[in-house]
Order: sequence, then C-alpha cells, then structure tokens
Amino acid sequence: MTSARKQRLAGSAARSGQARKRLGRLQSAGVIRDAATALFLKNGYLGTSMDEIAAAAGVSKQTVYTHFADKERLFTELVLGNTEVVEEFGQTITHLLVETDDLANSLRELARRYLNSVIKPQVLLLRRLVIGEAERFPELARIYYERVPERVLAALASSFEGLGARGLLRFDDPLLAAGHFVALVLWIPLDRAMFIPDSGNLDVPESERLADLGVRVFLAAYGRDGA
Amino acid sequence: MTSARKQRLAGSAARSGQARKRLGRLQSAGVIRDAATALFLKNGYLGTSMDEIAAAAGVSKQTVYTHFADKERLFTELVLGNTEVVEEFGQTITHLLVETDDLANSLRELARRYLNSVIKPQVLLLRRLVIGEAERFPELARIYYERVPERVLAALASSFEGLGARGLLRFDDPLLAAGHFVALVLWIPLDRAMFIPDSGNLDVPESERLADLGVRVFLAAYGRDGA
Repeated sequence: MTSARKQRLAGSAARSGQARKRLGRLQSAGVIRDAATALFLKNGYLGTSMDEIAAAAGVSKQTVYTHFADKERLFTELVLGNTEVVEEFGQTITHLLVETDDLANSLRELARRYLNSVIKPQVLLLRRLVIGEAERFPELARIYYERVPERVLAALASSFEGLGARGLLRFDDPLLAAGHFVALVLWIPLDRAMFIPDSGNLDVPESERLADLGVRVFLAAYGRDGA
Repeated sequence: MTSARKQRLAGSAARSGQARKRLGRLQSAGVIRDAATALFLKNGYLGTSMDEIAAAAGVSKQTVYTHFADKERLFTELVLGNTEVVEEFGQTITHLLVETDDLANSLRELARRYLNSVIKPQVLLLRRLVIGEAERFPELARIYYERVPERVLAALASSFEGLGARGLLRFDDPLLAAGHFVALVLWIPLDRAMFIPDSGNLDVPESERLADLGVRVFLAAYGRDGA
C-alpha cells in the first residue's frame, strides 16, 4: 500500500469515526427529545426534572446537558419543533381552495381535515401545556400562537381573498372571515377537549357533522348567495 | 345579681366568645383563600406550596391545614368557588332574550356582555390554570367545564328555543346553534388571549366590533330572514 493510499484510508476512517460520533450525538439528542416531550406533556414543565429526562432517555444527566443547555431551552425547542406540521396544512388550504369548482364541498373537506389535525391527543396535550405555561413562558406561548393558529388564519385569509376575487365569497375583512371559519369549525369540540382530555377523540361521524355544520353557517354569511 | 342572671350572662359571653372565634375562623379562611388564589393563578398548582400560602396569608401553616385538609382540596375549592358568576350570566341571557322585540340588538348586547365577562385577566388566568392542570386534575377540569362553558351553552340553547317558537330563529338543534353563537362571539379574542396574556385587555371599540360581527354571521345563518 502506498503511503498516499494509507493516508487516504486513515483520513477516511477518521472521517467515518467522526460521522459515527455525529450520528451517535444526533441519535442521543433524538432519544432525549422524545423522552422529554413525553414527560413534559404528561407532567408539565415544573413537574419534569432533567434527572427524569435523563433516566427516561437512558443517558446520563451530563449527556442531556451536552445537548441542551438547560430545561428551559429544551422545553422551548420541543414546543416549537412541533409547529412544522402547520406549514403543510397551509399548503393543504391553498391546494383545496385555489381552483375549486365546488366551494361548499372544498370547504367541508378542509374543515374536516382541520378538525382531524387539531382534535387529537398529542396536539391537545401540547396546546394545554403551552396555554398552562403562558404566564411562565409568555414569549414561547406568543411564538407558538404566531406559528400555529395565526399562520392557519393567514393562509385561510389569503385563500379567501382569491375566492372573493372570483366572486365565490363576499366579505369586507378576509382575516375576520378566516377567524369565523376557524371558530365555527373548531370551537365546539376544541373548547370541550381543552377541559376534558377524554373527549379528545371524536368519532368520525360526529367530527364530520360538526365540520359540515360549521361550513353551512359560514357560507350562509359569506357565501355568494347566502347558501 | 341573681345566680340565674349570672348564668345567663356567662352563657351569653361564652356564645359571643364562640361567635368571635367563628368569625375569626371565617376571616382567616377568607385570607387564606385570597392568598392561595393569587399564588395558584400566578405560579400554577405545582409552583405553589402550602408554606408560601401560609406566608402570604400571614398565618401559620398549621392554620392553613386547619381550614383545608391539603393543597389539592384547597385548589379544588378555589377553582369551583369562582364559578358562581355563571349563574348570574344565565339570568342575563334569559332577561335579554326572553321578550326581546329587537333580536339583533338584544343579541349584540348579549354578545358584548359575554365577551366582557370572559376576556378579562382574572377569568383568563383561571381558564389557563384549569386547562393547564386538566391532565393532573381531570375531574376538576370536567366539573369546571360543566359549570362554566356548558352552563352558558344550556342557558343560551334554552332561550334560543323560545325564540325559535316565536319564529325569530330557525334551527334544527338549539344546542348546536348556541355553540355556534359562542364560537362566533368568543373564539377570535379568546384563542389569542389564551396564548398571549397581554392581549387579555380588549379595548371597548374592538370588543364591540367583534361581538357585533359575530352576531351578524350568526343571524345570517339562524335569523328568520337570513339577516
């Protein structure tokens, strides 16, 4: 073996050693993240310690601190890490509404999907956690609100403007119309589910009924011909 | 002084001594309740200790335990003690709607009062606290939901039935109509205020605007002539 080849191999081994280490770090960060998410959602911020997170993740407390400077930053990262799904939902809104040729049907489809994406145990747990901690972490709760409910409202308002331009909806204020749409679709099951964790699993017929009836009221007010 | 009169005086003094003691106990229970309410609302259930409650109330920890068996029972009593105001609001609903001769106006008045009674700092703090503790205290959160939002819905549905009988509203399901009314009036400012404590003080014009616009949508769907 030439010395150049030996060097290349040694370099490659070192790189693959580094890659393994990096992978290991990523994996333990992921395990810590999952363990911490489960504990925060179950026991709240104050009810969860870094010791418990380390134990649940099967790593040392030192390893937890290597990845996350303190409990507060770990908590913040977890809450905001769960907001990406909203991006996708924004695309769903656009996709369903932009070129619809059956508005009532498209709105019902959208309302059903929205209800399904919110009224499920993990999302409700996160909502309760962020709301319950809004006094302690006002900045985090504000950012969560901006990234989740407010982003959905903005995406809806933007699609509604297009529908207004096509003469399919009538409104003065698209953001207000978006707020009313969300209110009509989500409020009844969501307010209940906030207080009654067990009610966070709607059966499909009830969920579809609530979505459809919310859309009916929305279209009575905002539809082209009040229907 | 006759011995009978002496006995009567002694009995009276003993009774007034007992009355003073009873009054003293009531007063210290009230002071403890106020101190505990302030601490729970500010720091949450886990973030509040019986020691802190005693210190804030200016009594011994023993005195706190004389009145309230443990932190859990004190917390439960405080949360549910704050639900009585809903009774009054139920009467307001009936009073405003039962014999109205201008439904749109009465609904706007009702919507404005409802919004004002919910979007204020103490009520929002309590809502956040109960929601945040719904996993730890599911029974308490369920009872709160039944005594507060659900009782308002029932009172509304009952008044709506009367309005339906008078031909002023049209609906298949009065409870669903009540849910949509509450959704249209409360959701926009309440969802925001849940996450952003600072937004829990709406200015009057904005609050009235949101109430009135919610009623407009409601009447478009449920009003006699869709307006």
